[in-house]
Amino acid sequence: MNFRSDNTAPAAPEILAALSAVNEAPAAPYGEDPWSRRLDDAFSALFEREVRVFTVASGTAANSIALASAVPPWGAIICNEGAHIACDECGAPEFFSGGAKLVLLEGAGAKITPESVREGVARNARGIHSVAPAAVSISQTTERGAIYTPAEIAALGKEAKANKLALHVDGARFANAVAALGCAPADVTWRGGVDLLSFGATKNGALAAEAIVCFDLDRAEEIARRRKRGGHLLCKGRFAAAQLLAFIENGLWLKLASRANEMARVLGEAAAPYLSLPVESNQLFIKPGAEALAKLREGGADFYDWGPPGSGEARLVVSWSQRAEEVEAMRGLLASLR
Amino acid sequence: MNFRSDNTAPAAPEILAALSAVNEAPAAPYGEDPWSRRLDDAFSALFEREVRVFTVASGTAANSIALASAVPPWGAIICNEGAHIACDECGAPEFFSGGAKLVLLEGAGAKITPESVREGVARNARGIHSVAPAAVSISQTTERGAIYTPAEIAALGKEAKANKLALHVDGARFANAVAALGCAPADVTWRGGVDLLSFGATKNGALAAEAIVCFDLDRAEEIARRRKRGGHLLCKGRFAAAQLLAFIENGLWLKLASRANEMARVLGEAAAPYLSLPVESNQLFIKPGAEALAKLREGGADFYDWGPPGSGEARLVVSWSQRAEEVEAMRGLLASLR
Amino acid sequence: MNFRSDNTAPAAPEILAALSAVNEAPAAPYGEDPWSRRLDDAFSALFEREVRVFTVASGTAANSIALASAVPPWGAIICNEGAHIACDECGAPEFFSGGAKLVLLEGAGAKITPESVREGVARNARGIHSVAPAAVSISQTTERGAIYTPAEIAALGKEAKANKLALHVDGARFANAVAALGCAPADVTWRGGVDLLSFGATKNGALAAEAIVCFDLDRAEEIARRRKRGGHLLCKGRFAAAQLLAFIENGLWLKLASRANEMARVLGEAAAPYLSLPVESNQLFIKPGAEALAKLREGGADFYDWGPPGSGEARLVVSWSQRAEEVEAMRGLLASLR
Amino acid sequence: MNFRSDNTAPAAPEILAALSAVNEAPAAPYGEDPWSRRLDDAFSALFEREVRVFTVASGTAANSIALASAVPPWGAIICNEGAHIACDECGAPEFFSGGAKLVLLEGAGAKITPESVREGVARNARGIHSVAPAAVSISQTTERGAIYTPAEIAALGKEAKANKLALHVDGARFANAVAALGCAPADVTWRGGVDLLSFGATKNGALAAEAIVCFDLDRAEEIARRRKRGGHLLCKGRFAAAQLLAFIENGLWLKLASRANEMARVLGEAAAPYLSLPVESNQLFIKPGAEALAKLREGGADFYDWGPPGSGEARLVVSWSQRAEEVEAMRGLLASLR
Repeated sequence: MNFRSDNTAPAAPEILAALSAVNEAPAAPYGEDPWSRRLDDAFSALFEREVRVFTVASGTAANSIALASAVPPWGAIICNEGAHIACDECGAPEFFSGGAKLVLLEGAGAKITPESVREGVARNARGIHSVAPAAVSISQTTERGAIYTPAEIAALGKEAKANKLALHVDGARFANAVAALGCAPADVTWRGGVDLLSFGATKNGALAAEAIVCFDLDRAEEIARRRKRGGHLLCKGRFAAAQLLAFIENGLWLKLASRANEMARVLGEAAAPYLSLPVESNQLFIKPGAEALAKLREGGADFYDWGPPGSGEARLVVSWSQRAEEVEAMRGLLASLR
Repeated sequence: MNFRSDNTAPAAPEILAALSAVNEAPAAPYGEDPWSRRLDDAFSALFEREVRVFTVASGTAANSIALASAVPPWGAIICNEGAHIACDECGAPEFFSGGAKLVLLEGAGAKITPESVREGVARNARGIHSVAPAAVSISQTTERGAIYTPAEIAALGKEAKANKLALHVDGARFANAVAALGCAPADVTWRGGVDLLSFGATKNGALAAEAIVCFDLDRAEEIARRRKRGGHLLCKGRFAAAQLLAFIENGLWLKLASRANEMARVLGEAAAPYLSLPVESNQLFIKPGAEALAKLREGGADFYDWGPPGSGEARLVVSWSQRAEEVEAMRGLLASLR
Repeated sequence: MNFRSDNTAPAAPEILAALSAVNEAPAAPYGEDPWSRRLDDAFSALFEREVRVFTVASGTAANSIALASAVPPWGAIICNEGAHIACDECGAPEFFSGGAKLVLLEGAGAKITPESVREGVARNARGIHSVAPAAVSISQTTERGAIYTPAEIAALGKEAKANKLALHVDGARFANAVAALGCAPADVTWRGGVDLLSFGATKNGALAAEAIVCFDLDRAEEIARRRKRGGHLLCKGRFAAAQLLAFIENGLWLKLASRANEMARVLGEAAAPYLSLPVESNQLFIKPGAEALAKLREGGADFYDWGPPGSGEARLVVSWSQRAEEVEAMRGLLASLR
Repeated sequence: MNFRSDNTAPAAPEILAALSAVNEAPAAPYGEDPWSRRLDDAFSALFEREVRVFTVASGTAANSIALASAVPPWGAIICNEGAHIACDECGAPEFFSGGAKLVLLEGAGAKITPESVREGVARNARGIHSVAPAAVSISQTTERGAIYTPAEIAALGKEAKANKLALHVDGARFANAVAALGCAPADVTWRGGVDLLSFGATKNGALAAEAIVCFDLDRAEEIARRRKRGGHLLCKGRFAAAQLLAFIENGLWLKLASRANEMARVLGEAAAPYLSLPVESNQLFIKPGAEALAKLREGGADFYDWGPPGSGEARLVVSWSQRAEEVEAMRGLLASLR
């Protein structure tokens, strides 16, 4: 029963098959192949407006290149203190941006709010002596499995614009959010003021395919340059493009994410007494205490502790590939704790 | 008849198959899966000594991360003026290194020699006012298809050590060189003083798999950090590892490279009157004049011009996947020029 | 009555005179002049051991170059959340280090403790996904006028070493601390485990002269390179050296600092009812409320508010050049608040 | 007889005196003092149009900050192969710009021409694989003592604009050029298309005062930020401002430069048989052979060799402070060579 992370999941068969499908003949390198060239159109259709799309090899690359293109080296990026960009990327945003600073905010569910954005701006109001707030970055879903509604996104977008900040979304689990919300992708992106989206596919069925979706077309040239310079322009770009096209065409991305969300919901019912946060997507946070967590592990469950050592809290992540029997068995284990 | 570049080739079926083979079940992320964990051993066996291996998404990433780990920000990297790192990576080595400088040397066949290394060092001998020469980077095969022999490598290695310079090899086409030389990989790397190798698989049959092979184990930790920070530590590392394992196990890499080399040799016979350089690997440089090149294109050949506009020179690259009929047809076209 | 900051003070006459004294004849450039060459010896005598000294134009440069030489680009610098390096240098440490991250700690008097250092380390314990804690930076005196005793320094030094962290001191007001402690400079630096000191002279009587004092001689070459590359190696180095020599020779630095400290102490007596922190050096923090602060300003006092708008707190800084009458007048104003 | 460099000269008495004149009372820090606030107006008057001025501690800082504000990290700076920014700044332009690349051009007198600019652009015409040419940087006077005329500047400015390149002038010896040309400063800067000027004062009479003169006002905010971040915003800015104001007010800068130029001219008469380049400013290049150079040194002359070891060429630099007797003695020595 592996609930460690959705990044342990294999690749979806549809996506593996897409690799073979583009492997018949020679194709132009460096994103000039027919599949790479279809990406802009395919994502523009998905997002109901003109966008530019840049494939990269990892979510860290997507986040860092997007943010570096949104802030000057002396800029500040406002985010939650638990954000992936703050805690899990070994300083990649600082590296790609040439030394920008992350301004860390507290927030329930690892979310940030317009109020906290204002606080982050106010902390850096010493003119030339401060760094210059230049972007807000949020995670959708958050690192605590929470989801920003279209209204929340719009409020953040408004606050960002009022402060001349770009709005970036780390969408490593964007599919899970959209599937849960049942809204159009546009509703939680550009319609709400989002300028840049790290669109994740790897955790939800791809092998290695992430994309920067750029709504602010003026930034496209800079992103293209930063991608090349970061070693993320692939010479055989067709293989990244094929993964992304298979992912978004025919709704595969939402099908896979919905499956994971639904299993998480089911698991959440069994975990109800221990939930430290509501189950909104495919992550669950339970806090049954250290002893109970040990019992779960004895029962064969695999997952990460959460928070400082001894917190008694844990995270369970359900992936698109989770087997129904695993979920059932885990439900049984959770029930046995009572 | 596409002779533009070996990066237009599809992936070898053995390597595609390897992706499916590792896709059965969940696996630990970030290089902790069984296949990624086998890489160090597999490459250590291949190179007949302990090495550390780091997969990355592109040759640009391999070169830049390796070099950044070998030079300080105020360092100089000595290389040929036509080197890929100098001309084709949009300044990636400068980016990853924090602003190191490339010192460009002339050289026949895009090679550098111990003498030219000394000249590069001498150009930067103004103490603290100069950048500090810190590495030599060569391409094997070179951007002009030439090959460094074990003795040449050893001479460069000796010169590098005498000047306290690290020695790096851009091996985007390392397989073609080793196949042509018929030597052990060790003979043109660490036995000759090479500290770091960018080991290329993508051009020779992989989808997207390059590796930094680190012979100087003291640099491994730094490479690991720079890779993570550059967004090149994949969360599903097994898919990169699987490509590389399939590539080197059972000699596939040399089989594919030999095939390309042999077809290039055959093509070279037909191109003999026009060769601007001897055919040593899978690249040919011909200089039949602009009119002749136009004729070849009219005949259906596809390739890049070489040198400044109007030079009348062209490059033909033969890939592992080139069909025998293509080569035959191209021979016919070349013969028709006479 | 200007109590805004000691950086508003003019230069001490002894230091201005020193400029003329070195201006008689040509002298070698770039630190090869006789005065620059005496710096290492003069500071080695002052610190009772061999040190290397590097002059720079500002405290920001001293801090940033010192720290960049102590941490890798993927490193973390642990400091108080109010540190100058965190709040007042527009991201200079991030710039010079190539993107290191500052880890911000709370602490009374803007101090940090061994416990908080451990917390800062623990926050970044996710292996390659975290930045790597690499240095602790403290300010002596702190941004709240507090002073670390030799024992406190030693405890921090011990903790730093236990975690393989370099220990850096931002000594923009180091003179005020040493004058107040009455100890040897060595007692609050290398004897306690300090590796690098930003030694400030500008706020305490120089025109523009700061120095990096390097106790860890292995870092000297790197500092020299980073200084040059940062544009801080002056071509007429004698004028920076002359300022520093005049500052430390004959105890001028401690005489000036003692004078400022003593006046602050005297002022502190009058401000006793309003002190938000004890007066340890030449800075006072008073919290008489917004109305009272307005009255002080009406009475002719000039100073900065402290904390968020409406906090009712203010900072008074006494410089070496403060006139006795100013202090007396300010005492009267403070008395009138009661 | 020290003809090593004008950076060995002391400070002019007028400039030393200006330091005392601004030292009477407290003054606002960080460029908010009355003298710093006059800089923009004073330089706007000097250049006959609105400019923004930023003092920095060295020519390296001026060049690097100006260039970093003119090029993206993936940009190329086109310059002569002997330029100070290429050979003498330990990679500072690469550091400040985040890794831009210098494109080195040959040229008589260390000059570049519109033709060579075009060549530099053409060398980097591989789209996203190349760095992006973004600036031209010339030295006025050049590293070989040559001077660009207003017409030459205008031709370069036109070429730069045609290629969307910023035009930067390293004016470490700008005074010598303007004095020699007898033109308005505007004639060899913005009227000819110059966007950014590193205006040098240190070599020509200041202690340590260089300025970035920004003609393209849109870049001012970026320069301000980069200066702060580089540690070049002085807390006691009045002392830098005072030097620059004394330098340009009342024509001191041209008086000092003219004196140096005239003595160089006189020396050039005696050196006529050995001149490797015409004497245009305050630098002479002679090539009497190694033996003759040894004789000059035996006679008491001090200077640097030029070019590779054994070239037999030397550089003589005449400073504003050179004594007439020295020049006379040197003339005698030169005459004795015949």
